[in-house]
Amino acid sequence: MSAPVRIDRRRLEATFAEQARIGATARDGLTRLALSDEDRVIRDRVVAWLEAAGCAVRIDRMGNIFGRRPGAGGVDGGPPVVMGSHVDSVPTGGRFDGALGVVCAIEAVRAVADAGIRTRHPLEVAIFTNEEGARFQPAMLGSAVLAGKLALEDAYNTRDRHGIRLVDELERIGYLGPEPCAARPMRAYLELHIEQGPRLEEAKLAVGVVEGIVAIAWTRITFHGDQDHAGPTPMRTRHDALVAAAEVVRAVRRIALDLGDEPVGTVGWLDVQPNIVNAIPGKVVFTVDQRAPRDAELDQARARLDEAVRAAAAAEGVRVETEPLMRVPLTPFDPEVVGAVEAAAQRLGVRYRRLLSGAGHDAQHMATLCPTGMVFVPSIGGKSHCEEEATDFDDIEQGANVLLHAALQLAGIA
Amino acid sequence: MSAPVRIDRRRLEATFAEQARIGATARDGLTRLALSDEDRVIRDRVVAWLEAAGCAVRIDRMGNIFGRRPGAGGVDGGPPVVMGSHVDSVPTGGRFDGALGVVCAIEAVRAVADAGIRTRHPLEVAIFTNEEGARFQPAMLGSAVLAGKLALEDAYNTRDRHGIRLVDELERIGYLGPEPCAARPMRAYLELHIEQGPRLEEAKLAVGVVEGIVAIAWTRITFHGDQDHAGPTPMRTRHDALVAAAEVVRAVRRIALDLGDEPVGTVGWLDVQPNIVNAIPGKVVFTVDQRAPRDAELDQARARLDEAVRAAAAAEGVRVETEPLMRVPLTPFDPEVVGAVEAAAQRLGVRYRRLLSGAGHDAQHMATLCPTGMVFVPSIGGKSHCEEEATDFDDIEQGANVLLHAALQLAGIA
Repeated sequence: MSAPVRIDRRRLEATFAEQARIGATARDGLTRLALSDEDRVIRDRVVAWLEAAGCAVRIDRMGNIFGRRPGAGGVDGGPPVVMGSHVDSVPTGGRFDGALGVVCAIEAVRAVADAGIRTRHPLEVAIFTNEEGARFQPAMLGSAVLAGKLALEDAYNTRDRHGIRLVDELERIGYLGPEPCAARPMRAYLELHIEQGPRLEEAKLAVGVVEGIVAIAWTRITFHGDQDHAGPTPMRTRHDALVAAAEVVRAVRRIALDLGDEPVGTVGWLDVQPNIVNAIPGKVVFTVDQRAPRDAELDQARARLDEAVRAAAAAEGVRVETEPLMRVPLTPFDPEVVGAVEAAAQRLGVRYRRLLSGAGHDAQHMATLCPTGMVFVPSIGGKSHCEEEATDFDDIEQGANVLLHAALQLAGIA
Repeated sequence: MSAPVRIDRRRLEATFAEQARIGATARDGLTRLALSDEDRVIRDRVVAWLEAAGCAVRIDRMGNIFGRRPGAGGVDGGPPVVMGSHVDSVPTGGRFDGALGVVCAIEAVRAVADAGIRTRHPLEVAIFTNEEGARFQPAMLGSAVLAGKLALEDAYNTRDRHGIRLVDELERIGYLGPEPCAARPMRAYLELHIEQGPRLEEAKLAVGVVEGIVAIAWTRITFHGDQDHAGPTPMRTRHDALVAAAEVVRAVRRIALDLGDEPVGTVGWLDVQPNIVNAIPGKVVFTVDQRAPRDAELDQARARLDEAVRAAAAAEGVRVETEPLMRVPLTPFDPEVVGAVEAAAQRLGVRYRRLLSGAGHDAQHMATLCPTGMVFVPSIGGKSHCEEEATDFDDIEQGANVLLHAALQLAGIA
């Protein structure tokens, strides 16, 4: 297969700019929370774009959107090659995270249509509900239900911080669809996404061929100390929950560094009680996010965290609770799909490297359903989930062409 | 002077129990925020108790309440010996902090009246507005205005977190009085208060003869790091505001311990932004409360804090802002008043020690207006500002008698 087909960069840029206006912030960022009014508007636009590109659109019971371009066997002629991502954002997030993958997938289908190419397998564009987890927890809800990781009923009953149920918001914005949200045969799943780290930019590469997603563990730790007055309480009698937590913040950093170049560890969320200038903190709750390219390394990191937590609690004389919140093993992507992405990059003369994704993506759940792979494009300054999030369109063009050609190889030309 | 006069313990206990019901929590604590409806009720009770004890009651423009028992020269016959404290509490605070000093002062006046004693100087009971600073900031507002530390207008315009102005609440609860809130001649000021620390209980002493209030410095520190995704951002490129803050939390502890047994240091308030499990903290704001028994020691502690903050910022590559919020030098109490308290303890056979107060009190402002001293009673477990706050009534009885006899010595018998 060596079709000279290419995506139309100007059309891609225009479509991208249009989506970026929906929920735009004053400083070129995006606030487009899952199932908000802004999400409804972008969904309506995406459906219109898909239909204009000749796709039959279906909405499932989780609000996931699928637009299918028929293959040689018609619209139901065999398992599709699915390309997708999400259109929700974090609050004051960026314009690229998620939406770029959807726009590139739509552009890939348009390019195939323009070139009059008939694929053996249908091509399909997927938009998953509530990937970010900023409004409803957990993240990647739409793909989780599709993959059978979470019951539809449980997803429906998830509430945002105002107590609003996910199912009510799905209905309100008109995306409580009729299609079952359940596993079905798929030839492959491909997702283009920004890297959200600095490695591609540092190496001046346009594309990352993603081999899988790192192993991830989230742990919640609570230290119970003694709340006392910060003045008359001598240092020797204190049991300060924040002093214990500070030891663990340091330990999380040290553990990651000790394990090499790739493991990471972060205390991102921390809450002090009563949080008063002149009160010794009686209670501190915080989370630890640890990730590693190998499950054994993550096991080590978790064990060392437990040690550090015990040591900090003992040293300060505070009581501790440790709750595992989440553990996702290393998700290796399918060698055939990873190979198709790499072959496309080579054929197109795109500078690339293989790497692991440090962040979770819907691809993680899709990998349990069908052969899966991802295409990364660089994040300027490694930044994401912020208004400064950006990717050069020279890189995006190359990434979108890699996505297109990998999809065509997997779908086959009829 | 060796009057056999003593306070009436049963009456003191009954009055204490009555005040403790006003704003009581389910677990024997107290929520009685300044100028709330509960504050109005306790103020009305206090005024009634004062009038019943033969006092002329005046309310000043800050809502401070003064009840004066005439001396030999009548109600305006010379500067009074003032005994006082406050009746507001922190949220879910204790029944003793503040209110105990007011109840003991009232009981002292009752005991003098019952014994038919005529003092040379009038005796006066003072109740200061908004000592805790829990609702309106800063703390000790009523005594601060009286001492000329804060303009009445500025105090009036202070707003609580709902935006309600202090002056409007004073008016609403009927305590916007007509008397000027300004310095006037006073023979002495005496305040009985719980220790809020463990030293008296540890030494099995009933009373602390307070020599002054430690020097206090509050500092607000802000670290500005780079908010990034906790997954794909390698450890080597991070600028994590919380890691820098954790270093300072440890340093605050270490600095206090290095300076000896008495200096203390606390990070009580800390805020992480954006405070998301999988985001590297981009900004952390926190406060440091440092106290020392000598100003030079506090200078050292502050200088070492600055060093530690600079070192942490440099090590993590984050930007830092440091704002001094408050600096109160050591407040030494008046030797004559401290001596009168000590002499009373000795005469009454009360086990006592001299000590410094680690917490601020209205006495701090009063010390700038007249000879001032304090009487401490033990805090069980050193606890305060919590529902478990407690003091044994055997100790309270001794403390109240020390207050009474010190006041009588300073007022003189006619």
